[in-house]
Amino acid sequence: MHPLSPTDSAFLWMETRNQPMHVAGLNLYTPPPGAGADFVSRLLARWGKQRQAQPPFNLRPVLRLGMWHWEEDQEFELGYHLRHLALPHPGRIRELLVMVSRLHGNLMDRNRPLWEVYVIEGLPDGRFATYIKIHHALVDGVTGARMMASALSSSARGQKPALWAQKLGVHPASRSTVKPAPGLLQQISDIARAGRDILPGIGAGLMDMLRAGAGVAEVDGALPFQAPPSPFNVEISGSRRLAAQSYSLERLRTIGQASGATVNDVTLAICAGALRMYLQAHNSLPKKPLIAMVPVSLHGETDAGGNQVTLLLANLATHVEDPLARLQAIVHSTTQAKQRLSKMPRLQKMAHGMTTISPLGPGIVTGSARKRPVFNVVISNVPGPRQTLYLNGARLDEVYPVSITTHYLALNITISGYCDKLGFGYTACRRSVPAMQRMLDYTDAAIAELEQAVSKPPACADKMPRAPARVRKASAAPRKPASSAASAKPAVPQRRRKVSAS
Amino acid sequence: MHPLSPTDSAFLWMETRNQPMHVAGLNLYTPPPGAGADFVSRLLARWGKQRQAQPPFNLRPVLRLGMWHWEEDQEFELGYHLRHLALPHPGRIRELLVMVSRLHGNLMDRNRPLWEVYVIEGLPDGRFATYIKIHHALVDGVTGARMMASALSSSARGQKPALWAQKLGVHPASRSTVKPAPGLLQQISDIARAGRDILPGIGAGLMDMLRAGAGVAEVDGALPFQAPPSPFNVEISGSRRLAAQSYSLERLRTIGQASGATVNDVTLAICAGALRMYLQAHNSLPKKPLIAMVPVSLHGETDAGGNQVTLLLANLATHVEDPLARLQAIVHSTTQAKQRLSKMPRLQKMAHGMTTISPLGPGIVTGSARKRPVFNVVISNVPGPRQTLYLNGARLDEVYPVSITTHYLALNITISGYCDKLGFGYTACRRSVPAMQRMLDYTDAAIAELEQAVSKPPACADKMPRAPARVRKASAAPRKPASSAASAKPAVPQRRRKVSAS
Repeated sequence: MHPLSPTDSAFLWMETRNQPMHVAGLNLYTPPPGAGADFVSRLLARWGKQRQAQPPFNLRPVLRLGMWHWEEDQEFELGYHLRHLALPHPGRIRELLVMVSRLHGNLMDRNRPLWEVYVIEGLPDGRFATYIKIHHALVDGVTGARMMASALSSSARGQKPALWAQKLGVHPASRSTVKPAPGLLQQISDIARAGRDILPGIGAGLMDMLRAGAGVAEVDGALPFQAPPSPFNVEISGSRRLAAQSYSLERLRTIGQASGATVNDVTLAICAGALRMYLQAHNSLPKKPLIAMVPVSLHGETDAGGNQVTLLLANLATHVEDPLARLQAIVHSTTQAKQRLSKMPRLQKMAHGMTTISPLGPGIVTGSARKRPVFNVVISNVPGPRQTLYLNGARLDEVYPVSITTHYLALNITISGYCDKLGFGYTACRRSVPAMQRMLDYTDAAIAELEQAVSKPPACADKMPRAPARVRKASAAPRKPASSAASAKPAVPQRRRKVSAS
Repeated sequence: MHPLSPTDSAFLWMETRNQPMHVAGLNLYTPPPGAGADFVSRLLARWGKQRQAQPPFNLRPVLRLGMWHWEEDQEFELGYHLRHLALPHPGRIRELLVMVSRLHGNLMDRNRPLWEVYVIEGLPDGRFATYIKIHHALVDGVTGARMMASALSSSARGQKPALWAQKLGVHPASRSTVKPAPGLLQQISDIARAGRDILPGIGAGLMDMLRAGAGVAEVDGALPFQAPPSPFNVEISGSRRLAAQSYSLERLRTIGQASGATVNDVTLAICAGALRMYLQAHNSLPKKPLIAMVPVSLHGETDAGGNQVTLLLANLATHVEDPLARLQAIVHSTTQAKQRLSKMPRLQKMAHGMTTISPLGPGIVTGSARKRPVFNVVISNVPGPRQTLYLNGARLDEVYPVSITTHYLALNITISGYCDKLGFGYTACRRSVPAMQRMLDYTDAAIAELEQAVSKPPACADKMPRAPARVRKASAAPRKPASSAASAKPAVPQRRRKVSAS
């Protein structure tokens, strides 16, 4: 019995049928040459023998005296968690995303450990997918990605224990699975000690809010409550739609080098471009820039496992038409936010993050989140493995994160690195974000317009083709990247297969 | 906008992640000869064109002033409700039941009309299945079965509109989709008028409870609170396990004719025999008989649609070892209950039923339902079509109901008639009713022991093989029916394919 941290518990308290609180990863694999039609069945048979789950995969949540605890599931049943599925005819990526969109909308059973592993066969040429769903109370995105990667081998001949059978030791509950709940005095003393560490952080968050309230806005920085109302800041339904696509990391690096931006900033600029086009296509682009909440991992500063994140708010400059000027505004905004964060120790950063988003709670209850959103969209960049990985000899080709949407945050963009690619995963409420699959066309166009912008001298900027005009007549067909110096280079691979749920 | 009846609303109020309140039907089909591998895809393409849903399939629940109403879904999206799935390798009935068990455990999205139609391909020989899930607030079992049957043709050449595109007119909301919510005065007057009609029924229910409390028990009759604690009367989890099997109606009729029992009573006796064996195998057979709650349809007395049922409590005589004596005790108990019901008009019957189960609510809250269950198990017999039906030329072979389990009622048995067969569907909490798939072996054995009992003169009864002894060493392998006069007749078909989820 191990009590959950307040952050981890929040994911259980906040969960409802309309806002499930699990994260997931969708991986695509190619079996080894000559693997045979029963490759997936043999993989499942091998995994099916690993009936013992290691922490945290053997833990289920129980509520004791109003606090959530992890306790070992004494009736752990692998057959419930490990699931074999097949795509219906014709088995395209489209069918895969339709299936995973549905799976992602389902709440897990809290009477059992909060994870589900799906192996999905039936893609062309014997390819298959895994969709692995883990509750956010159990892991944050970084820990989840690390766990998934550590169940894979760096060699085609390697074999690792299944995800749930690994002795990871990364989860707090794995270090003491039988720990008494803290007594009342202990809890008060813990809170007091934590309070001493984090009070300066709370102050910084409050100061940001006061400045925003007083209208002391910086030109390009992003403060809470400066976010405009947008179609993404509405109540959500219980159904989801996913879209996913991989891009060459090299293409983003080239843009970054030419413009003095980090890859993270280029990623934000691509999302900003795509969001601007989506909103223009729906005649709902706000005059004020969208504000993105960007989680920042603190895993480099601690090995505590669980949820170890703070956040910064980035001005996406979606009101700026010129893609290069938009990128520069984003760089300015994130630089400011990172400078402020760099001055704080870890616990202060976490407190700052929590204070910054704390109005989210009352805002959701009172409905003010629609008129005055704290921010408009979550954009999360999760680092991933840099070398090719294998599962039982099958090569991992593509990695897509599938994340959480909540009331008033109907769209989540999570980007996951793998080898020389970045997988963009869009997770949205199927009802409030219509035609979400078009977001992939806009992402293509946003990269192309950035490539074009950085490859031209500034004097030519006003002659650039305007993305919005093209977007308004966009068709559902995949868009070819606009010709540019960057894409003409042989060193830059073409963008990868496009995947989207209908 | 149309307000729900109190009974229909109850299914929305009572619903939680652990007890979803939908019912479903699992149908198995054989495509017409020479149909081709794309038969299912063509069926889906045809259905996909029927984008307009008729009432009640276009209605979603909305809460207004504390009352549930149906309102038309203005953004109805067929692609969300109609779903194409495929069984993974090797595509046996076992894989089908595993899949449907999972689907049945998922809550529906209340932002949309509360139904989902799955077409599942991948069974051997091109066979396929449909699994159709409808919220119990929208239909009761009888209405649901009627709706599903009316979407099928009685001829192999016939084509009917899809389930959701039929103009059925059987649902109250289909007659006035735009009806203002009743004013406060109107509501009070409605309640007063209903009260006048149903008060005698409430009295009868209360009298039953008082008699049970005072220990005035009848020998074979069943009254509320006489039910013993049992492993089925525990809190449930959010996961389900299904088992299903069809039996020849003729076999049950033969048993009934030889013993003077109705087919309904024989059905109850088969369930009683199977439950006795299951409980003996788990060393938990109560000394007192299990009490079954048996819903009784009132559809013959009204055309009001929605939920129109009352119930009777049947003594299952599971403490009686002799199968014939057990059957006779069941006949006695249901005869008494039906005599009492036959003296009441329809609204009184509904009130009687609601009073009889009304302690369920507080009992669930206080946990007393575990020590003093009102009844132990729900056994529901839903009449079905008597002639062979077709879907786009594909022959309907088997029909299985999939029903609801609730806290303290972890097992539901629903039996559905189709042609010359009865499909037994067991729906259970996967966690509280372990090894549920064995129930099918026990059902086989229960029919066989009844056949043996009625085919022998009473003097030989004490030499009959004892089912419990056989059951204790039962294996998972299908049990052959014991040889008996009834099964030796060529007119009696052998039992059909056995299906159970692992």
